[in-house]
Amino acid sequence: MQPLPGFRDFLPDDCARRNYVFAKWREVARRYGFVEWDGPVLEPTELYTKKSGPEIVGQLFNFTDKGEREIAMRPELTPTLARVVAAHDRDFKKPLKWFSIPQCFRYEKQQRGRLREHFQFNADIIGEGSLDADVESIALCIDLLRGFGFGAQDVVVRVSDREFWIDFLRAQNVAEEKWQETLQIIDKSEREPRDKTAAKLGPLATPAFEILDGKGGSEKLDRVVAALRARGLADFVQIDLGIVRGLAYYSGVVFEAFDRAGKLRALAGGGRYDNLIGQLSDGAVSLPSIGFAMGDVVLGELIDEIPVAKQQMENAIASGRNLDIYIVIAKEERRADALAQIQSLRDAGFRVDYPLTPAKVGKQFQTAEQLGARVAVLFGDEWPQVRVKTLASREEQLIGNEESLAYLTSLPSLSSRAERSGVEGSRGPTDR
Amino acid sequence: MQPLPGFRDFLPDDCARRNYVFAKWREVARRYGFVEWDGPVLEPTELYTKKSGPEIVGQLFNFTDKGEREIAMRPELTPTLARVVAAHDRDFKKPLKWFSIPQCFRYEKQQRGRLREHFQFNADIIGEGSLDADVESIALCIDLLRGFGFGAQDVVVRVSDREFWIDFLRAQNVAEEKWQETLQIIDKSEREPRDKTAAKLGPLATPAFEILDGKGGSEKLDRVVAALRARGLADFVQIDLGIVRGLAYYSGVVFEAFDRAGKLRALAGGGRYDNLIGQLSDGAVSLPSIGFAMGDVVLGELIDEIPVAKQQMENAIASGRNLDIYIVIAKEERRADALAQIQSLRDAGFRVDYPLTPAKVGKQFQTAEQLGARVAVLFGDEWPQVRVKTLASREEQLIGNEESLAYLTSLPSLSSRAERSGVEGSRGPTDR
Repeated sequence: MQPLPGFRDFLPDDCARRNYVFAKWREVARRYGFVEWDGPVLEPTELYTKKSGPEIVGQLFNFTDKGEREIAMRPELTPTLARVVAAHDRDFKKPLKWFSIPQCFRYEKQQRGRLREHFQFNADIIGEGSLDADVESIALCIDLLRGFGFGAQDVVVRVSDREFWIDFLRAQNVAEEKWQETLQIIDKSEREPRDKTAAKLGPLATPAFEILDGKGGSEKLDRVVAALRARGLADFVQIDLGIVRGLAYYSGVVFEAFDRAGKLRALAGGGRYDNLIGQLSDGAVSLPSIGFAMGDVVLGELIDEIPVAKQQMENAIASGRNLDIYIVIAKEERRADALAQIQSLRDAGFRVDYPLTPAKVGKQFQTAEQLGARVAVLFGDEWPQVRVKTLASREEQLIGNEESLAYLTSLPSLSSRAERSGVEGSRGPTDR
Repeated sequence: MQPLPGFRDFLPDDCARRNYVFAKWREVARRYGFVEWDGPVLEPTELYTKKSGPEIVGQLFNFTDKGEREIAMRPELTPTLARVVAAHDRDFKKPLKWFSIPQCFRYEKQQRGRLREHFQFNADIIGEGSLDADVESIALCIDLLRGFGFGAQDVVVRVSDREFWIDFLRAQNVAEEKWQETLQIIDKSEREPRDKTAAKLGPLATPAFEILDGKGGSEKLDRVVAALRARGLADFVQIDLGIVRGLAYYSGVVFEAFDRAGKLRALAGGGRYDNLIGQLSDGAVSLPSIGFAMGDVVLGELIDEIPVAKQQMENAIASGRNLDIYIVIAKEERRADALAQIQSLRDAGFRVDYPLTPAKVGKQFQTAEQLGARVAVLFGDEWPQVRVKTLASREEQLIGNEESLAYLTSLPSLSSRAERSGVEGSRGPTDR
């Protein structure tokens, strides 16, 4: 009776939370001029090993399909993005600003903030190498978090530069084949004792710690912060050269978003990957790019931790879920009349429900309250008049059924719905 | 460079179509008081064999995971629904009106209207055995189709009753173990020559053909049509006892929606399944239910065939995609000022884009047009005034940058956006 380990059922309350997060992601991304795309849930396994090496297979939901293809459920979207962008390179003017909300899958040990599936907002600016694209990307990350109600006291985006470290390794005469290993030691240094890191770094330890301790600045990162200051977002960022990100393909600015309290895993992370699309397309297409991803699981944990964010979510969910009108059928002889009116009200865009089987009037009003209806309309002895009751104020009004649609549309508590979601362009019922 | 066979990439135009279909499904389902839920993409393979028998495995994307579990990508949502509803039986007052938009997967031969994945709207009324629930379900199916702009001349819902046929088989003294086989012959009869069906049916042929030819009515189905007539929807339905539906678990009213021209596969199908939840939950929970599903692939084909539906979709997509404001940076010295204003405009809910790198003014206006912006705002020599240009009418207005947000919000072509999607409740930028 349980879902598989690491997988979630989305009961209506969970699904409403999910829809709230998705809607906010979409709204803010669109304000930034990003457009939505998506790829398949399944891809050839090779697409992932090509980018991440054969080790990745141990973390995949991968299998051989009935046509003998080696396939995998996507662990991330970037390889698909590279495939799609390379295949359609000539169809789109650059830069592209694309976002997506894929569900991604990893076979890994479950722990807090990590399941075997999650939804992951992805936003990428493709075909633009300027630092303004990096700033736009970081600003979007910040504004997504602001959109959920987080302030600079709640979250921080730590910004670093992979290129800075490459310059450092070059200046220290570290052999190129050691770079990736050294970068991973630096990436982990925050999470282990300094003497352990020092032992791993050897003669590099002293100059590297100087940088991690904030001595030695990056002119490029200063420019990033200045540009974010021009947007009023500087309080949300912090230069932190300890952020390196493990993946080999990052080539410039990298960043990660965290809760300020430091209790949770990263909320989001990304960076510049100028060579990845070329590598994944076997050199067919080369496009400098920057992107990041934000998962739904850690984000959901932080929403629950920050009261203003949680309240904002609950308000949005309540106003999105509630029924507009509950039809109370007090006399079964009126059921056909009620059904005709229900159809008219739904056609006008209202959310309307009613008892499918005969029930006591008191119980019907109870159901109306439970479903969050704003108004109940009673069909009974007073026909052809109906009784309209505003449930919050208990105000009642007796009105002719013929006039009731216009009356309901005029009610302040209902008018916005009718305006917003009327059945534009649909053809009306034909045989009444 | 291609997706796997039977899988789709959703480029921005495809994704906009998909979002249009999803939004319409959600809007109409909510007007009917349905609430959204979802389940996992992966389930134990046994969940599907239990419902459909071991043959189903040949059509599944199934595999053994790294924890030695036999799992499958969901081919449909109903078994998950039964699992979830049985597990949470006490948490929800019945009847439930639940909908979902799962992506479903089948390993099968590709043909028109059949891929290896599709999105499938599901709506179920659970815990209600009355005929009113059947009518509500069929009405929702019709109103979904109406929502896409189809009229009674475009689509038809053919309604039948599995119980009618069971009564027939019983009256004809057909042994119970032959029922399912016989029903499948009748289900297929429309698609094969009559003498072939007659040979299979033997002595049942004559009485069965009489029913298929419309002799012999069903009082229950007459009541269904009468109730739909009360709603003004009778033109969309047709009693057709030739609809039986292959699956064994249907127990009452069944229905399928088709294009009137008969060119396409079924648009939707479903019916009453009063025993399935009990069967799938090993008798733990018994709930009479009715539900149906509508896929996105055939629906998309019909939208493309019916001009009014296609136009409605294109209008909705265009108005949903367009940018509000493009910022033209005519002098690079104004970039920081422009960025500050871009942040304010986005915070107010507008969709705003701008050139990430310096570009000629003419090219920037071109980009503004390509992105569908309604208004361009030029930052240049006239600072601290900016030039606001309405792109459709070519009207221009010189205005102080400080006043421009209020001015833009007042423009009829932009005001609705600012009202609708302002950043309610989010905390503002803090360091300007």
